[in-house]
Amino acid sequence: MISKLVEEIKKKDAPVVVGLDPQLKFIPGYILDKKYEEFGDTLEAVAEAFYEFNVGIMDAVADLVPAVKPQVAMYEQYGIPGLIAFKKTVDYAHKKGLVVIGDIKRGDIGSTSESYAIGHIGSVSVGSSDKKVIFPFEEDIVTVNPYLGSDGVKPFIDVCNKEDKGIFVLVKTSNPSSGEFQDQKIDGRPLYELVADKVNEWGLTSMDGDYSNVGAVVGATYPEMGAELRRLMPKAYILVPGYGAQGGSGKDLKGFFNSDGLGAIVNSSRGIIAAYQNEKYASFGEKAFADASRAAVEDMLKDIRENI
Amino acid sequence: MISKLVEEIKKKDAPVVVGLDPQLKFIPGYILDKKYEEFGDTLEAVAEAFYEFNVGIMDAVADLVPAVKPQVAMYEQYGIPGLIAFKKTVDYAHKKGLVVIGDIKRGDIGSTSESYAIGHIGSVSVGSSDKKVIFPFEEDIVTVNPYLGSDGVKPFIDVCNKEDKGIFVLVKTSNPSSGEFQDQKIDGRPLYELVADKVNEWGLTSMDGDYSNVGAVVGATYPEMGAELRRLMPKAYILVPGYGAQGGSGKDLKGFFNSDGLGAIVNSSRGIIAAYQNEKYASFGEKAFADASRAAVEDMLKDIRENI
Repeated sequence: MISKLVEEIKKKDAPVVVGLDPQLKFIPGYILDKKYEEFGDTLEAVAEAFYEFNVGIMDAVADLVPAVKPQVAMYEQYGIPGLIAFKKTVDYAHKKGLVVIGDIKRGDIGSTSESYAIGHIGSVSVGSSDKKVIFPFEEDIVTVNPYLGSDGVKPFIDVCNKEDKGIFVLVKTSNPSSGEFQDQKIDGRPLYELVADKVNEWGLTSMDGDYSNVGAVVGATYPEMGAELRRLMPKAYILVPGYGAQGGSGKDLKGFFNSDGLGAIVNSSRGIIAAYQNEKYASFGEKAFADASRAAVEDMLKDIRENI
Repeated sequence: MISKLVEEIKKKDAPVVVGLDPQLKFIPGYILDKKYEEFGDTLEAVAEAFYEFNVGIMDAVADLVPAVKPQVAMYEQYGIPGLIAFKKTVDYAHKKGLVVIGDIKRGDIGSTSESYAIGHIGSVSVGSSDKKVIFPFEEDIVTVNPYLGSDGVKPFIDVCNKEDKGIFVLVKTSNPSSGEFQDQKIDGRPLYELVADKVNEWGLTSMDGDYSNVGAVVGATYPEMGAELRRLMPKAYILVPGYGAQGGSGKDLKGFFNSDGLGAIVNSSRGIIAAYQNEKYASFGEKAFADASRAAVEDMLKDIRENI
């Protein structure tokens, strides 16, 4: 799968992923009003509004970027209807030719991680003779939490190998308190470097072209660590959250990339999807929220292309 | 919430939780056949089979135990229909007076963790005037992954305080490779002890009677660490997975409890729910799978009461 993502990144000259993380406050009022009228004051109304919002953004940016990254928490927050909107978003992204990175950050003991892996990037067999094969969520790549160690991650890799899918393992996250545990020194090295060593080890079991299907998450908010981790994990693609709203900018990103401009993909969520609420793009107005998102993607691409 | 759980544990003299982790191989054939006939070879059929199975077990054990712990991965594996079965299981458990521990192991950056917290133990406001309040999944307690640090955990605690709910933070998990990161020494102390320190710190912000709404997960498979962690986290209730199928037994458990028999709750999943497949309870037969589960709970209670 990583080779497919790399190919799409090259084709569009865009090492960028749009985070589809809808929140009520981002949704234009006219969409919400319409859905409340149709579905009443229900979870369904919010979920349908999220989906219409996502479709608008995907239609506007699908020719510019290789991938989208829906954050499942935003959908799960609205229960079953929210998760239906998540699944519909994944399916629509595929129709638009986008790689889907499910930001699920799952991780558990072995047999349980296997269930997450199967549900999100794999398939189940159902029916009295086990003949009907169904891909329940069908993302292409998912994010994985490593705290439980190898036996919580390997089931994901097994599914990657079976179905040609990928994972990004949390190594150094973008949030302010990520250092509380991740930066703790073990024999002089931070914990996140030990996780990076494991990403290398796991990655060798799922190579796909120049890179591995086992990538890493390293926040844009920690650029020095990004450069060091780029060096330490030569075969791992790095998913870089934290650009834009969380504080990272293009000049912070050079170190995450290899000299050929590959090796990393940068996520922006609210900076893109809520661009119309940003003073810079306010002239678009809420009806043209998707055009504002397209303009924000173009600006982000310019910033990144200039800096890497 | 923890005071309610403690009260139920005392009332039933049962520091035990039944893990509702259905897998296809555990479901009696007659239930599956019936559902495939009704729903075809679909995810719905499996989900409905899981739910009927869970209802049978809850009906059989609800007077014996204070709580159930559905592992969401087992449901998520079957997509949206699976998650509907999860939600129905939570609702049915509440009808039976059981405390519901959602084993979700979520954890993300602050704003995203907030969405998980709201979705699982909190409420959303929907509608044009924000007046309709809905609890999307409505578990009572959820498990949380601490790898992202305080700002990934605090949103859960805020929701605990608002809605009188609880969390169990992963400290030392029951799986074989849990030591890869969790046991790494930082200034001479294992990482899981640093997490335990944080559980104490976080816990002080959500006290509820003698214990905190912020508990900890410590695997039965690591009894020495359990005794040490019991001492290090005096206000944290400890959720102990790994009893039975994963290798832990009653004699390993004494150290997890305080001298008054409180302070821990032990989970068993397949040892209870798939008891009818165990030679010891095979005489029940698959039609009486729930009676086999009840017998297994009674044996587990005896084992634990004798050993703590």
